[in-house]
Amino acid sequence: MEETGAGPKGALRRALGGLRWERIDCLPYKEDGAAPFKGVSRQILFSGEPLESELRYFEIAPGGFTTLERHAHVHAVMILRGEGRCLAGEAIYPVRPYDLITIEPWAWHQFRADQAARLGFLCLVKARRDRPMLPDAGDLAKLRANPEIAAFLDGR
Amino acid sequence: MEETGAGPKGALRRALGGLRWERIDCLPYKEDGAAPFKGVSRQILFSGEPLESELRYFEIAPGGFTTLERHAHVHAVMILRGEGRCLAGEAIYPVRPYDLITIEPWAWHQFRADQAARLGFLCLVKARRDRPMLPDAGDLAKLRANPEIAAFLDGR
Repeated sequence: MEETGAGPKGALRRALGGLRWERIDCLPYKEDGAAPFKGVSRQILFSGEPLESELRYFEIAPGGFTTLERHAHVHAVMILRGEGRCLAGEAIYPVRPYDLITIEPWAWHQFRADQAARLGFLCLVKARRDRPMLPDAGDLAKLRANPEIAAFLDGR
Repeated sequence: MEETGAGPKGALRRALGGLRWERIDCLPYKEDGAAPFKGVSRQILFSGEPLESELRYFEIAPGGFTTLERHAHVHAVMILRGEGRCLAGEAIYPVRPYDLITIEPWAWHQFRADQAARLGFLCLVKARRDRPMLPDAGDLAKLRANPEIAAFLDGR
């Protein structure tokens, strides 16, 4: 994992264009592949113990989506590029650059890029955090009882 | 101070344009006025105990600068708009949008906007952190022994 310490190469990581950075790898969204998602990349911009948090940049390809999940830790999100929608708890929000989204503890959440645009966003989390939980059949049934959420989850 | 919790008004704080946000105050850079700086505003985008960190947006007017200071905690910075320069430790970096800068513990640092452009940047810090220290005459003499740093501090 990329450390906060700039080390011998200096304090600056230059932007390379297209929201890529020098000395920062573009990673798969999740390591294990067990959770459903589509077309998402991850770059770890800042991390390490001294900071007590991590700042990541995620990018979702057009029509893609992050995993529907929840957890105890908070997400603090700033949209950087593109257009999409976000499920946060029981509300769905259209999102565009520089919008700020707070995902509260245990709120179900998912980000979806529009069909015609990617969606890129910063996501700040604390360094020591719990693992996300996926919905079981009962959770999904409760979420889908709201027709707007059902349509969102089906990408409509 | 603005809390992380979105509360009754929802998870979303919309961007208003010009890197201002709904329900986020544009504050003075420092409360006390004891430290030298010029033309800097501050907005607290995310904070509060659950996150264990704070994400702030600072904007420096053309020709302005932040306080020359150092401290034990780390700054994790992403430039969002404009052009300027940054002193980080003993190096000076030109900076432009999306560049990432790590300010290491106890590194002297200052951000300066160009004379013709503002400079806006995100700055991530841990929630519980030490207060900045200002340079004394001896510190300034050591910094100014490097002609490039002396020129930077003089805005040249």
